Amino acid sequence: MSDCLFCKIANKEIPSNIVYEDEKVMAFLDINPVHPGHTLVVPKNHSETIFDTDEEILKSLIAVVKKVAEAVRLATGSDGLNIIQNNFKAGHQVIPHIHFHIIPRFEGDGLKTWPQKPYENEDQVKEIEKRIKNNLL
Amino acid sequence: MSDCLFCKIANKEIPSNIVYEDEKVMAFLDINPVHPGHTLVVPKNHSETIFDTDEEILKSLIAVVKKVAEAVRLATGSDGLNIIQNNFKAGHQVIPHIHFHIIPRFEGDGLKTWPQKPYENEDQVKEIEKRIKNNLL
Repeated sequence: MSDCLFCKIANKEIPSNIVYEDEKVMAFLDINPVHPGHTLVVPKNHSETIFDTDEEILKSLIAVVKKVAEAVRLATGSDGLNIIQNNFKAGHQVIPHIHFHIIPRFEGDGLKTWPQKPYENEDQVKEIEKRIKNNLL
Repeated sequence: MSDCLFCKIANKEIPSNIVYEDEKVMAFLDINPVHPGHTLVVPKNHSETIFDTDEEILKSLIAVVKKVAEAVRLATGSDGLNIIQNNFKAGHQVIPHIHFHIIPRFEGDGLKTWPQKPYENEDQVKEIEKRIKNNLL
């Protein structure tokens, strides 16, 4: 898409710090990292979220995520690593071109996960389980 | 592995709320969800993190993640959705059997992302870029 930042980066209309590139996929540094080495993996062809991205492209992306995650881990000496793929504004997606974050993590870096809590009762669990199964295409 | 919780769930030695299953992959509800509908996608065969998981298994997992994420979105009417895969204790991995979280999100749910900040200078960016490239296998 002509007005998409990540399409412009993939087309090299805008410079970036590219760490990996093949025919379909590019990985480059996030310029505002959680920690240095925080890398984004994107398809060169535009799609917005996981929902409109072809399964074959997703498979190419996850293979590159693994490869680049190994390099990020070695390059940063990280103790842990998060792979995060956010969808839509309510899911913290800022650039509407699908991307996987690779975030190196360090013991004691103080970053927290979101709170989790049990279901209210077994009926609530069974209801949501049924609704998800009924919505599988 | 005989003492692995997710292996026991995959083998149905321990009951769970299964929403999807095929030969290689299983998806079931997280019993302590961030929001109801929070689902985990795991390979039936044991591996610990993305680093020791075969590329072909990762591709099978991401295809199921997409399929189940669509169902979770429809079932919950979520406004956004996060796919998260945590590695090692410092990356908030609790069960050492690789899993993808599918987390439905809602406008105004108050959950925050981690702070991000620019690199200190161009030399720092170039150094980390070079180190990641040098560590690509």
